[in-house]
Amino acid sequence: MKKTDLPEIAGGGLIARRSFLASGLLFATAAPALARTVDPGNATIVDGRPDWMTQPGGDGVAYGLPSPHEAHVVRHAIPYMDESVGFAPWHTPIAAQQGIITPNGLHFAVHHNGLPDIDPEVHELIIHGLVDRPLRFTMDELLRYPIVSSIRFLECAGNTAANALSFTPLNFSVDVISGQVSGAEWAGVRVADLLNESGVKPGGKWVIAEGADAGSLTRSLPLSKLMDDAIIALYQNGERLRPAQGYPVRLFVPGWEGNTNIKWLHRLELTDVPAFTRDESGLYSEPRSDGTIEHFTFPMGVKSVITHPSGLQTLPEKKGFYEISGLAWSGHGRIARVDISADEGKTWARADLDQTPMDKALVRFSLPWRWDGKPTTLLSRATDEIGNIQPTRKEWKSHYAAHAHNHYNAIQSWRIKKDGEVENVYG
Amino acid sequence: MKKTDLPEIAGGGLIARRSFLASGLLFATAAPALARTVDPGNATIVDGRPDWMTQPGGDGVAYGLPSPHEAHVVRHAIPYMDESVGFAPWHTPIAAQQGIITPNGLHFAVHHNGLPDIDPEVHELIIHGLVDRPLRFTMDELLRYPIVSSIRFLECAGNTAANALSFTPLNFSVDVISGQVSGAEWAGVRVADLLNESGVKPGGKWVIAEGADAGSLTRSLPLSKLMDDAIIALYQNGERLRPAQGYPVRLFVPGWEGNTNIKWLHRLELTDVPAFTRDESGLYSEPRSDGTIEHFTFPMGVKSVITHPSGLQTLPEKKGFYEISGLAWSGHGRIARVDISADEGKTWARADLDQTPMDKALVRFSLPWRWDGKPTTLLSRATDEIGNIQPTRKEWKSHYAAHAHNHYNAIQSWRIKKDGEVENVYG
Repeated sequence: MKKTDLPEIAGGGLIARRSFLASGLLFATAAPALARTVDPGNATIVDGRPDWMTQPGGDGVAYGLPSPHEAHVVRHAIPYMDESVGFAPWHTPIAAQQGIITPNGLHFAVHHNGLPDIDPEVHELIIHGLVDRPLRFTMDELLRYPIVSSIRFLECAGNTAANALSFTPLNFSVDVISGQVSGAEWAGVRVADLLNESGVKPGGKWVIAEGADAGSLTRSLPLSKLMDDAIIALYQNGERLRPAQGYPVRLFVPGWEGNTNIKWLHRLELTDVPAFTRDESGLYSEPRSDGTIEHFTFPMGVKSVITHPSGLQTLPEKKGFYEISGLAWSGHGRIARVDISADEGKTWARADLDQTPMDKALVRFSLPWRWDGKPTTLLSRATDEIGNIQPTRKEWKSHYAAHAHNHYNAIQSWRIKKDGEVENVYG
Repeated sequence: MKKTDLPEIAGGGLIARRSFLASGLLFATAAPALARTVDPGNATIVDGRPDWMTQPGGDGVAYGLPSPHEAHVVRHAIPYMDESVGFAPWHTPIAAQQGIITPNGLHFAVHHNGLPDIDPEVHELIIHGLVDRPLRFTMDELLRYPIVSSIRFLECAGNTAANALSFTPLNFSVDVISGQVSGAEWAGVRVADLLNESGVKPGGKWVIAEGADAGSLTRSLPLSKLMDDAIIALYQNGERLRPAQGYPVRLFVPGWEGNTNIKWLHRLELTDVPAFTRDESGLYSEPRSDGTIEHFTFPMGVKSVITHPSGLQTLPEKKGFYEISGLAWSGHGRIARVDISADEGKTWARADLDQTPMDKALVRFSLPWRWDGKPTTLLSRATDEIGNIQPTRKEWKSHYAAHAHNHYNAIQSWRIKKDGEVENVYG
């Protein structure tokens, strides 16, 4: 069957992986005639070879870094944030990522008062308040407890705020719009193990977690979640936390909004009621369209975003084959499915999920697409294992006040223009 | 129940996780009286706080690095390798690792002729030989194919050669003895997808893979494995390959000895028979005790090693509780179980496995241990899903010639001396 005749599984050119792969040459070009079979001594042809095939290479290094040819792949400080807000969000370049793990050097980070340089020999974690025994832990003591690890996503409550706030869609990259989400393997001590040691008095229902930076970000969290799957995180992707991720120790609360994962964690205080700290009464509460305020809205909603192709990219050729690929996640559990539309939402096809979806972790989804060269809009819509479905922007906006900007998880629409340029639009 | 009375599940002080965690205070110390509940404005107590709690922190960076306090956690160039061999192995500091992902900067690496600096705009991958259509791919073309990702281990065929070769056990760290193994998420294009495009002529049974460094490491691999689960790897842990891992492209052959995962991959040649290259006829073949040679011994055997406690460490206190923890893997599939002995192999207890074991990936195992302060030996023994069991050193040595040093997967014995020092011994 000719490539142009492959059957669609949904409108706009979405096709099944099997027929895509069976459709003959895609992107390769014919190689020059190479009749030579390998010489067992493998040292024959030298003429015409580049320097790196003929001269010994350079020295190794004790701690490796990316290739200088990839120096453009860095975190982005977002351009539209008002400096006076007093914190700097660094976004992961998710358009340059594949798989579900973000390298530590590119993990998104939001600092409310800069990066503290904490001496791990001095820093302590204290557990106090409504406990039977107030306890304190040096870092060396914490490291002696059983360490557990899980691959999880982490997302800032304010991720994709640009789409929530701006009345007209801003022509930014996916990194800038939605790069406050990353994936990593987090390892540390179960909070439950430490609270079982301190004991919790009958009235203890909330835990107030405070960071040791000068911003001392402070959040109140229900005890039940901390006893369920929260950890005192000491490691990220196999090495101790980076400074921007809370070195030497942070709270990690799987699936919950980023700011509750208190960095540079200093103390956990057991109380009977939440503290209504500045951070939770102000920035991290959400005004609704009915005039009320949502407090303590912890889990991040089911969400997906296509990263290839995405904003500010240009499709290299017309009427060509492309692999649509992106990331999905849910703070409520595993992703069950992701659907893609290539015809502005009229029809949808179920995307392939790469690897088995893990609990509260990123999932990579993909589907082959044959672009016919006409303008269209690409959308993705995730569903999680408990049945939450990603809303449209209109649905999301109807629930929240006009100036609400946290927990924005609406479907992302990417407009494919006639010239192949990709642009952020509202569906 | 008192901590000292906890029942053993095997000799030498191995105890069940549940009784360990229920045994009261382990490593915490009493906290000073802290009656204060949190101030919602969280800006109350300043006196006595360290600088980092009272002064704004430093700037973020576009590409993050580890804390300066962790500057000692680096790859080790192994001290016993003869410089004249012409390559430098860099070992992962596995004793400093938790979880199953190795950060890219610490992934082990062996270079046979230094680190080439390859221009990704010039480099091409060529598929030729017994194919219907010889093909070539620029890196940009490869990046347009469907990308798949999996978390896998990678191990050098020569990992733990020190224990294979030395008649007396060398007193090294686990990093130096067994640090040529790492775990990462590898992403790239299925080799099968590209070979389906080139077509394979009926006689094509082997694939000769050659690297583009001046060492041009070359291996012959059976077509069946490449069609099964091998990928043309472009990404590692979410970013493009590091130079030491083959930037811009390497072959990744899950579970097979490290050197077959050809770095800086330049060409794949389909042939009817293996090429018996220098690399596979010499260094990467194994002399047996019966005088014959094993060629093409690709999968890495089932293996485990305790990383905490391990060689050159010292247990901080006598008669104390410790978490035994380590890594296990098998080139044949998933790890089914890991058993630990704390009494020199007389009795064994099944270790806890952290996370669900993945195919050809590292698994973290652990078990609580109450050391009674007497000298003893700790051992771990892994079993994979098809029933392979890690051999004893004696069993391993009986199969191979005295100077064999590849594919050493025997049980590692760590001697715990009276003063708490940990030493490499042969069990």
